[in-house]
Amino acid sequence: MDCIFCNIAAGKIPSDILYQDEKVVAFRDVNPQAPVHLLVIPRKHIGQLSELTEKDTPLIGHMIEVANQLAKREGIAESGYRLVINSGKEGGQLVPHLHLHVLGKRQLSGRLG
Amino acid sequence: MDCIFCNIAAGKIPSDILYQDEKVVAFRDVNPQAPVHLLVIPRKHIGQLSELTEKDTPLIGHMIEVANQLAKREGIAESGYRLVINSGKEGGQLVPHLHLHVLGKRQLSGRLG
Repeated sequence: MDCIFCNIAAGKIPSDILYQDEKVVAFRDVNPQAPVHLLVIPRKHIGQLSELTEKDTPLIGHMIEVANQLAKREGIAESGYRLVINSGKEGGQLVPHLHLHVLGKRQLSGRLG
Repeated sequence: MDCIFCNIAAGKIPSDILYQDEKVVAFRDVNPQAPVHLLVIPRKHIGQLSELTEKDTPLIGHMIEVANQLAKREGIAESGYRLVINSGKEGGQLVPHLHLHVLGKRQLSGRLG
């Protein structure tokens, strides 16, 4: 179990956990690109977005629901925020465990990549 | 009905539609930021991400599933791609109808906004 996000989800690597349930874990990005920069990950190891199957649809929906709830708690639901999922090399994915970025609390650029 | 994306979904404004079903429509962004830049929208008018309720979870999950299928068709599932949803002003949302960006076919920047 060399995956850093699996280890965070299992509590074996400390992180600033904001939310967790039986399916997902959310914590602050250690290299934030905005005043609010959170990650929402599934507990189960899914390498990347392109590996999702139709049966994972409720899981990804739940990840976004959790992101929206956290945006409210962080006070960015009204001011605005951005969700990003990078998949694979050209997508800019750095950690090979599916993760959803939640960014906000400053004006984000119109450039999406 | 002044919403441009409602009009695209209804076929009243022409667009390069790649996929549609009873819930969602996908088409090419008219101002692409990458060689592949698609938008996936719900047919029903949802202003922004923060307006989603728990009952919309299957819809947002379906939008992502469609995005993943289109990434395969566009030949970027393996090379990599990025999904982005902007919500509200600081998120950089330009059209006030929920939309999911799918970007790829070039190395995307590590800057997420």
